[in-house]
Amino acid sequence: MRANYRMHRLFIDAPLGGGEQISPPAEAAHYLANVLRMKDGNEILLFNGRDGEWKARLRVEGKKRVGLDVLEETRPQTEHPDLVYCFAPLKQGRLDYLVQKAVEMGAGVLQPVITQHTQVPKIGIERIRANAVEAAEQCGVLSLAECREAVKLDRLLDDWEPSRRLIFCDEGHETDNPLPLLQSLGPGPLGLIIGPEGGFSEEERSVLHRRPFVTAIPLGPRILRADTAAVAALALVQATIGDWNFRGVRE
Amino acid sequence: MRANYRMHRLFIDAPLGGGEQISPPAEAAHYLANVLRMKDGNEILLFNGRDGEWKARLRVEGKKRVGLDVLEETRPQTEHPDLVYCFAPLKQGRLDYLVQKAVEMGAGVLQPVITQHTQVPKIGIERIRANAVEAAEQCGVLSLAECREAVKLDRLLDDWEPSRRLIFCDEGHETDNPLPLLQSLGPGPLGLIIGPEGGFSEEERSVLHRRPFVTAIPLGPRILRADTAAVAALALVQATIGDWNFRGVRE
Repeated sequence: MRANYRMHRLFIDAPLGGGEQISPPAEAAHYLANVLRMKDGNEILLFNGRDGEWKARLRVEGKKRVGLDVLEETRPQTEHPDLVYCFAPLKQGRLDYLVQKAVEMGAGVLQPVITQHTQVPKIGIERIRANAVEAAEQCGVLSLAECREAVKLDRLLDDWEPSRRLIFCDEGHETDNPLPLLQSLGPGPLGLIIGPEGGFSEEERSVLHRRPFVTAIPLGPRILRADTAAVAALALVQATIGDWNFRGVRE
Repeated sequence: MRANYRMHRLFIDAPLGGGEQISPPAEAAHYLANVLRMKDGNEILLFNGRDGEWKARLRVEGKKRVGLDVLEETRPQTEHPDLVYCFAPLKQGRLDYLVQKAVEMGAGVLQPVITQHTQVPKIGIERIRANAVEAAEQCGVLSLAECREAVKLDRLLDDWEPSRRLIFCDEGHETDNPLPLLQSLGPGPLGLIIGPEGGFSEEERSVLHRRPFVTAIPLGPRILRADTAAVAALALVQATIGDWNFRGVRE
């Protein structure tokens, strides 16, 4: 079923079901009344990451208090995309962007990775989570991406489950086109790792190449900024071995 | 030949050749001395969109004046990517981003298009050009994208050269995966059109579908923001029928 992209959508951490009455927390109430300027009787879509997407009607109960009457389910809960998205954090503005884009493109797990050229060792995990929720609201993603604590690259690779194919965007690749490589892979659990601005070090590249679960791909003839590479790689991975392909025709 | 992504690169509107001495305009001189903090004898890469990429050495000639001695060619001029990128302008910040990403991904022509849902009828063509230059500097693109004046969608389609395949990202497409459609197309002149936030109107969608030179593609099961859709679509088009594929192995 397609997501409705005209109606507003709000993540709310409460059980959702027909007849439920929800008293949104102050922040959500403010957003509904003052940002979306919703009036009594207006409708909105709600999701909590577990119970699917539900249409709800706003009830104004006072100057600062609103209620939400849950009406009917508009889309069933979708499963968490099985894609672990590993990224070297960027400067804050670009990091927000990177996280939002990853969620739009169907990353199920957001895994910050510290590499030798990583500029930003301090990661605001709460800010990453907030960006993931915002992107889910805007893009009709019903499952919330899991935001993990940052790990060093070596640690990530040592703990990596070997049955999960890790796609590595390799600036040093000798070809331009990732498609033949990606299309030679079958379905299965997936990971994608994007380097920092300035790329992986030569040492990191050879460490990645030595791991049997790693598949190195190029991303065209031009240098891409890290956040561009992220969206481009996600599109190519999803369309070949990800859920753009193996979901097939939209239900 | 691969672009060097460690050295700074500067667009300069002057003839480039061995032995040339360039007196950069005040703005470029300021950028070299005060932004890049380059010292006498430091080297930088120059390009002008015509003569390839050249290594040059900085000569400090005074408090505010610097010269550039052109040393040797580092990369031959690459041809203009034959991809006409048509986009509905977005809010300024996202428009800057959209233009930069399009250049990184190999758009040869930037064509703003006014659609029914386009929020921003006023287009700053100079700002689009500045963003295109900045992206070329950062990403080692040696040809400058051509920035065209905005046109209405109907006008764009009426004037479209029918031998140029126009890929249309259709939110209403009944499948998820664009690859089978794109891979069924052969090489040739290309265009890509991305709608505004909120998408094309139903009327615009049917107008596009009626044109024989238009191929409609989906972009996965999720709603994508316009700037995400742009990068995703460019990656898929370049990897199938664009210059990620038909350039083959990097020379």
